Amino acid sequence: MYNHSELKEIVDKALVNLSCSIEAEKLFEPVRYILSVGGKRLRPVMALMACNLFSDKIDDAVMPAAGIEIFHNFTLVHDDIMDNAPVRRSFPTVHSKWDVNQAILSGDVMAFIANDCFLQAPSPSFLKVFRVFNNAAVEVCTGQQLDMDYEKAAIVSHDEYLRMIEMKTAALVAASLKIGAIIGGSDDRDSDLLYDFGRNLGLAFQIQDDMLDIWGNSALFGKTRGGDIVANKKTFPLIKAFELAEGETLKQLQNELAARDFDPERKVKTVTEIYNQLKVREKTEILANGYYDQAFSLLRKVSADEKRKQEMETLAASLIGREK
Amino acid sequence: MYNHSELKEIVDKALVNLSCSIEAEKLFEPVRYILSVGGKRLRPVMALMACNLFSDKIDDAVMPAAGIEIFHNFTLVHDDIMDNAPVRRSFPTVHSKWDVNQAILSGDVMAFIANDCFLQAPSPSFLKVFRVFNNAAVEVCTGQQLDMDYEKAAIVSHDEYLRMIEMKTAALVAASLKIGAIIGGSDDRDSDLLYDFGRNLGLAFQIQDDMLDIWGNSALFGKTRGGDIVANKKTFPLIKAFELAEGETLKQLQNELAARDFDPERKVKTVTEIYNQLKVREKTEILANGYYDQAFSLLRKVSADEKRKQEMETLAASLIGREK
Repeated sequence: MYNHSELKEIVDKALVNLSCSIEAEKLFEPVRYILSVGGKRLRPVMALMACNLFSDKIDDAVMPAAGIEIFHNFTLVHDDIMDNAPVRRSFPTVHSKWDVNQAILSGDVMAFIANDCFLQAPSPSFLKVFRVFNNAAVEVCTGQQLDMDYEKAAIVSHDEYLRMIEMKTAALVAASLKIGAIIGGSDDRDSDLLYDFGRNLGLAFQIQDDMLDIWGNSALFGKTRGGDIVANKKTFPLIKAFELAEGETLKQLQNELAARDFDPERKVKTVTEIYNQLKVREKTEILANGYYDQAFSLLRKVSADEKRKQEMETLAASLIGREK
Repeated sequence: MYNHSELKEIVDKALVNLSCSIEAEKLFEPVRYILSVGGKRLRPVMALMACNLFSDKIDDAVMPAAGIEIFHNFTLVHDDIMDNAPVRRSFPTVHSKWDVNQAILSGDVMAFIANDCFLQAPSPSFLKVFRVFNNAAVEVCTGQQLDMDYEKAAIVSHDEYLRMIEMKTAALVAASLKIGAIIGGSDDRDSDLLYDFGRNLGLAFQIQDDMLDIWGNSALFGKTRGGDIVANKKTFPLIKAFELAEGETLKQLQNELAARDFDPERKVKTVTEIYNQLKVREKTEILANGYYDQAFSLLRKVSADEKRKQEMETLAASLIGREK
C-alpha cells in the first residue's frame, strides 16, 4: 500500500520526466513552468490512491494520472487569462510571465499532451477510462462558461451555483477517482461510489476555496485575497448574503456590485464586513460540511481494505483543512 | 465509390447533427457558428476518400473525419485570436463576434468534442488512429508557435519556413489521409504513402495559400488581402524576396519590415510591388509545383483502384487551383 506522500512523489516524478518530443522550446517552456510551480497534485494522487484501493500494481495508472494533472493545469492557464489573474500559487501566471498568445497556445498543447499521457499506458480499459476523462473535460469547460456568465448576471440561484461548481471543480475530482478505480480493476458499483465520493468532496472543496478567497491567509493561499469579490463572482457567500441582507445592508451590497469605478481594496473590505455582519461564513461552512459528510458516507460503502480507505479519508480531510 | 461532393455532404451532415450534450448554450453557440460558416471540409473529405480507396464501407470513418474538422476549426478560432484577425471565410472571427475569452473557451471545448468524435466510432484500430491524430495535433500547435516566433525574427531560412508549414498545415492533411486509410483497412505501406502524399500536398497548398494572401482575390479568399505582409509573416515570398533583393530594393524591404508606425494599405502595396519586381510569384509557384508533383507521384504508388485514385487526384488538383 502506498501512502499519500509516496504517491505525490510518483506523480511529481512522472511530470518532471514528461518526455517531450515538442520541437519548439518556447512552446514547452510555459508547460514546464506551470507544472513546476507546485500545487497539491490532488487529482492525480487521488487517481493513484483509488487505483491502490483495488490493486497493488499502480503503474498503469501513473501516466493517466499525470494526464489528469496536465489537463487541470491547462484549464488553470486559460482560466487565468479569462479571469485576468496576475498570480497563481504565489507565482506569476503564464500570460503575465509571457503573454496572452503564448498562454493560449501553450495551454492548447497541454490538452494534447494530456491525451498523449492516456495513450502512453493503454490498459485494456482504455476506452472506458478515456471516455470518463473526456466527459469530465467537457464538463470543466461548461463550468467555466457558467462561471463567466454568472459574473455578468445580476443574481444567481443557489442551485445554479452548485451546478456550476459541480462541473467546474467536482467533475474532474470525481473522474480522477473513477479512472483510478477502473484501472485498478474495481467493479462498476465501487467506481461509481468513488465518483460520487469525489463529486461531493469536490463540492466541499470548492465551497471551502470560495471561503479562502474571502477569509483565507493570502500568503498561504498564493492568490490575492478578495479576487472573487472584485470580479463579482457569484460564490456561495455572495448568494447567501443576498438572501439574508435587508434594508440598508442590501442596498449597500447592491451598490458595491453595481459600481463601475471603485477602489478594489475598499470594495473587498466593505463586502467582507457585510458577510461578517450576516454570519455568512458560518452558513457557508454548514453547506461545505454537508457535502463533506456525504462524501465520507459514500467512501465507507466502497468494498476495499479499511486501512487503504483510511488513507483516502485522511487525504480528503486535509484538503478541507480538517486534519484527522 | 463515393465522389467528392457526396463525401462533403456526409461530412456537413455529421457536423450539423453533432450531438451536443453541452449544457451551456453560450459555450456551444460559437462552435456551431464557426462550423456553419463553411470551409471546404478538405481534411475530413480526404479522410473519407482515403478510407474509400480501400473499403466500400466508410461509416466508421465519418465521426473521426468530423473530429478532424472540429479540431481544425479549433485551431482557426485560437489562431485568429493570436493573429488578431477580424475576418475568416468572409465572416467575423469568433473573438470579433463574441470576445477573446469566449473564443478561448469555445475553442477549448472543441478539442474535447474532437476527442469525443473519435470515441464515438471506436474501430478496432482506435488506438492507432487516435495516436496519428494526437501527434498531428501537437505538430499543429508547434507549427503555430514557430509561425509566431518567426513573425518576430529578423530573418528565417527557407528550411525553417518549410518545417513550420509542414507542422502547421501539412501534418494534419497527412494525418487525415492516414487515418482514413487505416480505418479503411489499408496496410502500413499504403497508409504511409498516403501520409506522404498528404504532407507534400499540404506543403503545396500552404505555399499556394501564402500566395493568395498577396495576389489572391480577397472577395473569393474571404480574408483581407496582405494580412501576412502587415504582420511581417515570414512566408516563402518574403524569404525569397530577401534572397533576391539588392541595394535600394533590399533597403526598402528592410525599412518596410522595421517600420513601427505605418499605413497598412501602403505597406501591402509597396511590398507587393517589390515582390512583382523580383518575380517572386513565379519562383514561389515553382516551389509549390515541385511539392504538388511529388505528391502525385506518391499517390500513384498506392495500391488501390485507379478510378478511386483519380477522384483523389481531381480533389487535390482543385485545391491547388489546377483543375484537371
